[in-house]
Amino acid sequence: MNKTLTITLGALNEAIGSECRVAITPESAAKLLKAGVQPAIESGAGVKAGFTDSDYEAAGVKILSRNEILKSSDAVAYISVPESSVIYTQAKGSFTVGLFSSLVNKNIAQQFESAKVTALDITLLPRQLSRAQSMDAMTSQACVAGYKAALLAANEYNAFLPMMSTAAGTIKPAAVLILGAGIAGLQAIGTLKRLGALVTAYDVRPAAKEEILSLGAKFLDLASFGGPDLSAGQGKGGYARELTNEEKLAQQAAVDKAAAQFDIIITTAQVPGRKPPVLLTKAGVEGLKRGSVIVDIAASALGGNVEGSQPEMTIQTDSGVKIIGAPYLASTAPKTASNLLARNIADVLIHFISDGKFVIQDADELAVLAISAANNRPQSDK
Amino acid sequence: MNKTLTITLGALNEAIGSECRVAITPESAAKLLKAGVQPAIESGAGVKAGFTDSDYEAAGVKILSRNEILKSSDAVAYISVPESSVIYTQAKGSFTVGLFSSLVNKNIAQQFESAKVTALDITLLPRQLSRAQSMDAMTSQACVAGYKAALLAANEYNAFLPMMSTAAGTIKPAAVLILGAGIAGLQAIGTLKRLGALVTAYDVRPAAKEEILSLGAKFLDLASFGGPDLSAGQGKGGYARELTNEEKLAQQAAVDKAAAQFDIIITTAQVPGRKPPVLLTKAGVEGLKRGSVIVDIAASALGGNVEGSQPEMTIQTDSGVKIIGAPYLASTAPKTASNLLARNIADVLIHFISDGKFVIQDADELAVLAISAANNRPQSDK
Repeated sequence: MNKTLTITLGALNEAIGSECRVAITPESAAKLLKAGVQPAIESGAGVKAGFTDSDYEAAGVKILSRNEILKSSDAVAYISVPESSVIYTQAKGSFTVGLFSSLVNKNIAQQFESAKVTALDITLLPRQLSRAQSMDAMTSQACVAGYKAALLAANEYNAFLPMMSTAAGTIKPAAVLILGAGIAGLQAIGTLKRLGALVTAYDVRPAAKEEILSLGAKFLDLASFGGPDLSAGQGKGGYARELTNEEKLAQQAAVDKAAAQFDIIITTAQVPGRKPPVLLTKAGVEGLKRGSVIVDIAASALGGNVEGSQPEMTIQTDSGVKIIGAPYLASTAPKTASNLLARNIADVLIHFISDGKFVIQDADELAVLAISAANNRPQSDK
Repeated sequence: MNKTLTITLGALNEAIGSECRVAITPESAAKLLKAGVQPAIESGAGVKAGFTDSDYEAAGVKILSRNEILKSSDAVAYISVPESSVIYTQAKGSFTVGLFSSLVNKNIAQQFESAKVTALDITLLPRQLSRAQSMDAMTSQACVAGYKAALLAANEYNAFLPMMSTAAGTIKPAAVLILGAGIAGLQAIGTLKRLGALVTAYDVRPAAKEEILSLGAKFLDLASFGGPDLSAGQGKGGYARELTNEEKLAQQAAVDKAAAQFDIIITTAQVPGRKPPVLLTKAGVEGLKRGSVIVDIAASALGGNVEGSQPEMTIQTDSGVKIIGAPYLASTAPKTASNLLARNIADVLIHFISDGKFVIQDADELAVLAISAANNRPQSDK
């Protein structure tokens, strides 16, 4: 049985350009309803992710106009960082939850604050906390991105990934290098291993070595290519720490040298709030075999892990190497990505419900998500 | 040690449009040289497949002009059916080998005959013959096509193929249906199983059931969907026999009904020399779930296995189904496809060499490949 529905949660149609995800799915709706939350979406919000308005209605979700959602919802869930005009249309005193990357988007907290909206930024989640795992949207989306990076690379590569013995002779398996073995990297390793590739991976965090080996991949020992000693590479919050300039140069030179023996390279090194580190330089790309494929998940307007990568572009170099800048990969499996993300969002919201209202308690370890605290309007008074 | 090089084999640059393959590779060159054949290619012939002219030169292959190859080679290898002007430029009395599909291209034999060229059509290979296996280009190319069909479908699908248990809940695996379990279908099954999909397959040939089950896929029992009894579906040469009209309609109706439960459908049913059978009708496509992906390997100008498929086009239906017409998939992994094809071609040619010349002996079971017999010029007299 559903609880009395004391709270409304809305989601807009954010599927613009490369973005195909939606913040509420018919599946997450069931979870929300059980917790006393009435979900609503802007018409068409789920179409690109594979969910029609009728799918939502069948799941008990209301279909409202954009304006209705912003003005009437107790909470609004976002995937991308909303425009100021959107923020200021939200009801004063309402809640919001989303992937706001407030460490990078320095003025977003201030905007929510002045709009009198209490905002929860999921990117601030203390990821090591076990009760936060079901809310970890960075992990769920990185997982989808890693899976799709592997498929994209396999599909773009000009040869087979698996070894194959045929009547006419044997086909060699493809050699793949994964740079950055966080969630996305590990998922890429698993998917490429499934496809039969020979996978080697590297990460600056010493803890990553065991994870790489446990998936049956090889660990790239950069030291044997003249790389730096990075025995203290673990940073805060499970991310890699930033290297010194000297370490960076030594790492690049070693990666450039090591990369030449691989057919496919997938780079996934992102440091929140900072320009992604360059792992493979122009010289390294030039040293690759003709026909090699690079997928740079960290590609951004500021640059990526690979010198010369461009977001959402495939560049064919003169030496016959394909560099694919693929920052929005989670959106290329939008149904799975949305289902996971919507569950994460629902769990965050539900966590902050107490007696049919949103409450942020100072003693709560997850209170760190709140980047503005316009207060918690007594929801049941409406 | 290489034998004395008494024969020359040339290959043109046929990489036009979707075609990216090449009939001689640096790898097949080694085999040819060992057998006394001097390989030569038109400059740039291998670039789209990942082989530069220098790669060829390093492997002992000569780089010649198109005209030189046609006029001076003892044999020319083709991937596609050559234009008449090309055929008539070949030296009188020379040999040629290729995928000529002479059962479909009714006038190709006559053209070679009047050009005084002895042509070997690999598509006529008696495939069950064990000594012919290393020459079986239809098998090697279907194998690549099936692998790429699986990757393409996985990459285009809006969700995960594997089941996945995450902190936020479980993702269901994708359900895939393969229609036609020949070489391409079996390779697609294997690849999709590797990726973690739930795979079901169907073929009219009763022998296919065991092959399907042995790969860990389910066999689609069309009878339970009102399908026809096809207990005698095996045709000649390992292909499926053509069904009667009544059987076809019953099969279509049953496939249409069965298809509705799948997320991805790959169709691979080709009957040499005939229009591909329609397996899934418009009504069947309309019955599929929103977000479903169809890859029709048999898509052709005459139609494919799926009503509404178009070669080299992706069609998004009003009901949210993606129909991908993909007849040239082998060319999308051109390095592997070329390496296999070039080995097949080399083995065919080498088979017909006797005492440093090409000889077709009537008693030879492979003599059926010869679609014209302009005679065998005494090669060593040049």
